[in-house]
Amino acid sequence: MKLLQERILRDGNVKNGNVLKVDSFLNHQMDIGLFNEIGKEFKKIFGDLNINKILTIEASGIGIACITAQYFNVPVVFAKKAQSINIDEAVYSTKIESFTHRKAYDAIVSKKFLNANDKILIIDDFLANGCALAGLIDLARSAGASVEGIGIVIEKGFQSGGKMIRSMGVRLESLVIVDSMNAEDGSIVFRS
Amino acid sequence: MKLLQERILRDGNVKNGNVLKVDSFLNHQMDIGLFNEIGKEFKKIFGDLNINKILTIEASGIGIACITAQYFNVPVVFAKKAQSINIDEAVYSTKIESFTHRKAYDAIVSKKFLNANDKILIIDDFLANGCALAGLIDLARSAGASVEGIGIVIEKGFQSGGKMIRSMGVRLESLVIVDSMNAEDGSIVFRS
Repeated sequence: MKLLQERILRDGNVKNGNVLKVDSFLNHQMDIGLFNEIGKEFKKIFGDLNINKILTIEASGIGIACITAQYFNVPVVFAKKAQSINIDEAVYSTKIESFTHRKAYDAIVSKKFLNANDKILIIDDFLANGCALAGLIDLARSAGASVEGIGIVIEKGFQSGGKMIRSMGVRLESLVIVDSMNAEDGSIVFRS
Repeated sequence: MKLLQERILRDGNVKNGNVLKVDSFLNHQMDIGLFNEIGKEFKKIFGDLNINKILTIEASGIGIACITAQYFNVPVVFAKKAQSINIDEAVYSTKIESFTHRKAYDAIVSKKFLNANDKILIIDDFLANGCALAGLIDLARSAGASVEGIGIVIEKGFQSGGKMIRSMGVRLESLVIVDSMNAEDGSIVFRS
């Protein structure tokens, strides 16, 4: 997605430790006009799949998922990050290792909001090592729901998540894939 | 807002401990059609105020804020809940007592995304004791920004937050105010 590549080059910042800061438009301050272009693009890609629900995880996936949902006319469910205590039987839960925060947490979804008839589109802002995404797939499958597609805004192509998720046989599409980046000179190379 | 009152009566659940569960349409599963009606209503109320930014807090405020932002053509900034460690100088931070989780946390916003020229509309899903809202006001004021208005979806009128926030001289409008509710028979009384 050319518009997004241009925006990343203009406003993104490469930091040490393979960090790509896009917090001025994607995941802290959010450019809703851009989100609408992202939503339209996901609709182009996944519009033929009869999606009936979008699944994401708090917090930074929620805004993109909600704007995207307007193009599919479906509700959004977001998985909540729980603090490992008192996970009751009324929820599906899965354990996720956080790359950013270097700790594990449980992600939960109420059983009321995922079921075996659901055809799910998973939406998230970033894909790096794929742990959050694998957790969302696990939650959907726990409910017997079908994961029809996964839409990611920015995939770090030099990390293992994309390969791991695609090997699970799920259709994964990323609007941009970063093949390499350099904190020294700030350069970013996209996969074409 | 009549549509919202009807939806709360239909799909909301009153639980012990003054809990109003609206997780099937507002803050876990999210009805984006309803969010658009909410956004239009906030535009009617606050449309004359020259808002240039919407401020909310993760997680459940984000979806409503993003959909509402489309009617104002402004970006959304969400405050992040931090775990009290390593709050650096590049962020505004404020301490918030959580009623739901019975603990305190720091809410932070990068200094890049709030400044003295901002005319802020704060959006959140619930107002109960007002601690989260007071925190957001504090964050905005720390930046020298002006809080032009606060839009709340559901205010619990029998708790002290509404009175406390209004006494601060901020324009606060709630789409529905619950004056009382009863977990025994599930009844809900709205302020007219």
